[in-house]
Amino acid sequence: MVILAGEPVAQRLLDETQKAHDAFQKTTGRAACLAAIIVGDSPASVLYVRKKTEKANSLGIESRVFELSSLVRPYELKILIETLNEDPAIDAILVQRPTHIPDRDISLWIAPHKDVDGFHPLNAGNLALGNPCVTPCTPLGILAMLEHYKINLSSTCIVGRSPLVGKPLATLLTSHNATVTLCHSKTQNLKAVTQQADLVIVAVGHAHLLDRSFFKQDAYVIDVGINHKNGKLQGDVNHDGIEDVVAGISPVPGGVGPVTIAALMKNTVLCANLSTQFLRAQTASDISIFDE
Amino acid sequence: MVILAGEPVAQRLLDETQKAHDAFQKTTGRAACLAAIIVGDSPASVLYVRKKTEKANSLGIESRVFELSSLVRPYELKILIETLNEDPAIDAILVQRPTHIPDRDISLWIAPHKDVDGFHPLNAGNLALGNPCVTPCTPLGILAMLEHYKINLSSTCIVGRSPLVGKPLATLLTSHNATVTLCHSKTQNLKAVTQQADLVIVAVGHAHLLDRSFFKQDAYVIDVGINHKNGKLQGDVNHDGIEDVVAGISPVPGGVGPVTIAALMKNTVLCANLSTQFLRAQTASDISIFDE
Repeated sequence: MVILAGEPVAQRLLDETQKAHDAFQKTTGRAACLAAIIVGDSPASVLYVRKKTEKANSLGIESRVFELSSLVRPYELKILIETLNEDPAIDAILVQRPTHIPDRDISLWIAPHKDVDGFHPLNAGNLALGNPCVTPCTPLGILAMLEHYKINLSSTCIVGRSPLVGKPLATLLTSHNATVTLCHSKTQNLKAVTQQADLVIVAVGHAHLLDRSFFKQDAYVIDVGINHKNGKLQGDVNHDGIEDVVAGISPVPGGVGPVTIAALMKNTVLCANLSTQFLRAQTASDISIFDE
Repeated sequence: MVILAGEPVAQRLLDETQKAHDAFQKTTGRAACLAAIIVGDSPASVLYVRKKTEKANSLGIESRVFELSSLVRPYELKILIETLNEDPAIDAILVQRPTHIPDRDISLWIAPHKDVDGFHPLNAGNLALGNPCVTPCTPLGILAMLEHYKINLSSTCIVGRSPLVGKPLATLLTSHNATVTLCHSKTQNLKAVTQQADLVIVAVGHAHLLDRSFFKQDAYVIDVGINHKNGKLQGDVNHDGIEDVVAGISPVPGGVGPVTIAALMKNTVLCANLSTQFLRAQTASDISIFDE
């Protein structure tokens, strides 16, 4: 059995991103800048954002962190986001999402060209229509893993239909010629479906929901789940005895996680290029208005 | 075998739409208005648009048709669309699409709240994120058919990944708890996949691509194709001898076609309500600027 480690894939993405960022710096004379907003002081959120900004800094990308009280009102968060949208020194914005403000509101507030997570409806729509611009980081990272390990996509089953992972991943893999079956909590006889697939990607956010009995002999499995349970990190798949069944599986931790962070770096540089283009277009149109 | 006729489903949608339009008229004091732009003088385009406007008029919805030369330049079409976007008397805009101007450009020009076909990336994104607003007419009509005939969605196969039918349909049915496998031209051993499904929806735009050998006993089949061949209309499925295999199939013509037109009417009234809200919000914000 092959362990589909995330590290070499992440490194490859980071190398590409480093080159793209060097080119960006050469053209614009400045580093890209990622703004991260944390709502509340949960240690997990703080740690997660620190991991991202440290990775950015290691590539020469600047970062700014905004820590807001867990009691922040929606309009206060909105005003901060709108200020960052307008700020030419900020290229990309991510929000470590609080629970009391609806995700869909936050996604709409961030300008699409600074939407480093790819959650704005315009980015989701462009992906759905086959013209992806900013693609959500986890699907982007998973695609990079599948390409790195040269895994055949012709019979793919995705478990989990979340709008941030399962659904955009299904769309992305379909456009890469995968034949995808998208399963979810209402799927009847899930095991019979997963057992048909050569590749199963599990993104349900529920520790050990599937075990080895769900996979056919020599299938590949990508375990997207990162669940905190009993002080440990657990995947969505119970890996006990799985080596007798599958041909390869991504570990938790050390699988999809680092690749997702690398994909975020790639998106940051993409946003930096988009934001620069946007600013240039805006300036050009301001001048033409001025001329009239 | 049941013939899954479109007419009763279309009638039901039209009855609902009539009520919604009556309510709209009562509130606003005016009829909704659908603008249709035809590029070029192909008799098929003219006939297709006439069918739509006649159906609209039969519900008391107004229509305006704009016939443009097949030589129209992209910026000329764009200016017409922008004018209609700004016109408060126009609620919904459809373009009988020419071949020489990219679909994605046209989709971006139409204001999302007047985008009666649901092709704008913002509408595609809202559908993908699970907050559908204007949903494309053919998927909307197919869902109405499946609900009308009480067809089980738990094992659904869609053949065809077009951004206007197959992909949004997969998203829409998934959000209605279907477990969907999305197949396409690069699917390996298509027949083995379709033969697994209790419901197969074929939307490939290729006359008679599938025949009865592709379906399992007692499956249901929705044939979305409307192909002009040898002076006749043919579906994507060859219906010869199919009665021995399937439990039900939608005919061509008389299946998905009339339901799609009814769904367009439903979307027209939806757009009329959205456009009225949009205008109200815009006016309110103009007043507040004026007050400053």
